[in-house]
Amino acid sequence: MSNLRKYNVAVVGATGAVGKVMLEILEERKFPIKNLKLLASERSEGKTVKFSGADLPVEALTEKSFGGVEIALFSAGADRSRVFAPAAVKSGAVVIDNTSYYRMDPNVPLVVPEVNPQDIKKHHGIIANPNCSTIGMVLVLAPIHKAAKIKRVVVTTFQSVSGAGATAIQELKDQVAAWVKGEKLVAKKMAYQIAFNCLPQIDDFLESGYTKEEIKMVNETKKIIGDPAIQVTATCVRVPVFFAHSESVTIETEKKLSAKNVREILSKAPGVIVMDDPANKKYPMPIDVQGRDETFVGRIREDISHPSSISLWLVSDNLRKGAATNAVQIAEHL
Amino acid sequence: MSNLRKYNVAVVGATGAVGKVMLEILEERKFPIKNLKLLASERSEGKTVKFSGADLPVEALTEKSFGGVEIALFSAGADRSRVFAPAAVKSGAVVIDNTSYYRMDPNVPLVVPEVNPQDIKKHHGIIANPNCSTIGMVLVLAPIHKAAKIKRVVVTTFQSVSGAGATAIQELKDQVAAWVKGEKLVAKKMAYQIAFNCLPQIDDFLESGYTKEEIKMVNETKKIIGDPAIQVTATCVRVPVFFAHSESVTIETEKKLSAKNVREILSKAPGVIVMDDPANKKYPMPIDVQGRDETFVGRIREDISHPSSISLWLVSDNLRKGAATNAVQIAEHL
Repeated sequence: MSNLRKYNVAVVGATGAVGKVMLEILEERKFPIKNLKLLASERSEGKTVKFSGADLPVEALTEKSFGGVEIALFSAGADRSRVFAPAAVKSGAVVIDNTSYYRMDPNVPLVVPEVNPQDIKKHHGIIANPNCSTIGMVLVLAPIHKAAKIKRVVVTTFQSVSGAGATAIQELKDQVAAWVKGEKLVAKKMAYQIAFNCLPQIDDFLESGYTKEEIKMVNETKKIIGDPAIQVTATCVRVPVFFAHSESVTIETEKKLSAKNVREILSKAPGVIVMDDPANKKYPMPIDVQGRDETFVGRIREDISHPSSISLWLVSDNLRKGAATNAVQIAEHL
Repeated sequence: MSNLRKYNVAVVGATGAVGKVMLEILEERKFPIKNLKLLASERSEGKTVKFSGADLPVEALTEKSFGGVEIALFSAGADRSRVFAPAAVKSGAVVIDNTSYYRMDPNVPLVVPEVNPQDIKKHHGIIANPNCSTIGMVLVLAPIHKAAKIKRVVVTTFQSVSGAGATAIQELKDQVAAWVKGEKLVAKKMAYQIAFNCLPQIDDFLESGYTKEEIKMVNETKKIIGDPAIQVTATCVRVPVFFAHSESVTIETEKKLSAKNVREILSKAPGVIVMDDPANKKYPMPIDVQGRDETFVGRIREDISHPSSISLWLVSDNLRKGAATNAVQIAEHL
């Protein structure tokens, strides 16, 4: 590794749920780091975070934080990306932004490296990392689209609390502990109790009755695959699971595919693992996929309600491939 | 009530999850009972169960259990219905069977009283109570079908553990308690850990890759609504919720309906409550619908992926309307 060029990297939102996994993945993948700068809100200033055995200090994020930084990995919310990503670009950094803020900007590539790596080089300083639910799904959709042209996708998600951040993880833990003690369950970060419940709302509502999260899946899918003709409808639901998002997906294609065809296509698809053996009760589940970088797919079957459609079930780790791993992969391509 | 005719009623499976709720609902609705016989497997013989303030003994189910019984409410599994329902009919009882065993038998009406009460009188001794996920959904589909002719339904369910019986409820409780104590989580009734997980399998798999539970939703919907042309595909998933099943449903219709049309249609539909106010974060959730007899529906919106389709979210209590209440309503119609 010694003759590899090394980079000055900043992680913005280093103490959040995604930020922590980002650091783990930079370490795991031995990303060639010269200096690592950890940035977060003033609340976290003075804290230290472990990285490669050392305790690194967390600094407060300001417009002046980015001197000498070459790659800035942002995951501190859309507002912070709006304010600070341009400052990082002005300082000469390439920003890989994990928030929704720049994703639909026509000047910003939206990239899943297994699907559209060619878009990375079109950047003007900012590259957007897609929504966690979208990343897991497009890894499966892209090879199917290539083989049979997708006309329409109907997706329903089962999203873990880690998608709502570290405080939401703690909230589910606290609610479950309170329930066992017979105490009152308190909801703060999420609108309602999540323990033993399903919340059919993620992010805010739009005029159309869809949530922003649902429309992210619609628009980002078209942009990443590069075909605005793909029709998508989504229903996004939070469930009492800690890590990994599951999705029930029905895919109408122009050319009819058998379940066997789809298994063959997906078994060759980068970033996808087919886990589909109903006779032995093998299908992906969040508790198994947690900690993995691939999208796991099972329950592949021909949709009996439509002449040319496939239903399947996929699970991916929303903090890893759904956020941190994908961002680090983009950085590696740079 | 004194001049009402009263009936000799037997509850088969009286100590199970559905049986217990069946007794609550007979009491709540003041069903005109002369004698109540509680039947269960030999394991429960000698136990007593509270009903209207009295302790009633549980008797072992045999072919001779039904002397004098006029209405027998079965919910003790498909095998017991197969063996003992004919014995009950031979003894002169009308059987209302809550299992899947007779549902698709052309000689057995499959009834949701708000949808097809006219089918009740076609019985030859047995009337079948539909699957819990189907009942919740057809209450919403039937009035939409009447208004706009449904062509296709794509449904994904979020089913509570109570649908797998009393032992499954206890299993989720035990797993959560173990998790809080840092102990190992044990799965016995369900194939895998259900706490903090999603299981994309309910009932056994068929050759097609669908589960029996999914095909129940497909076939029963057509039979209850009385239109075999309605196409349905389902994905049924167990989630760590105690009571009430949630469903994400996309409904393609021949005639285009607006979200407003659907809200108007459903607000007049019997057994349905529209709870749909996104601006105020009002939508149905299992923790609110638990203990209610209606199907609650929200998130009603025009499907942006299709020219004539509606997406919505519904929740119904699988033990009450999904099983016991519907069975008692059928008995009331008799």
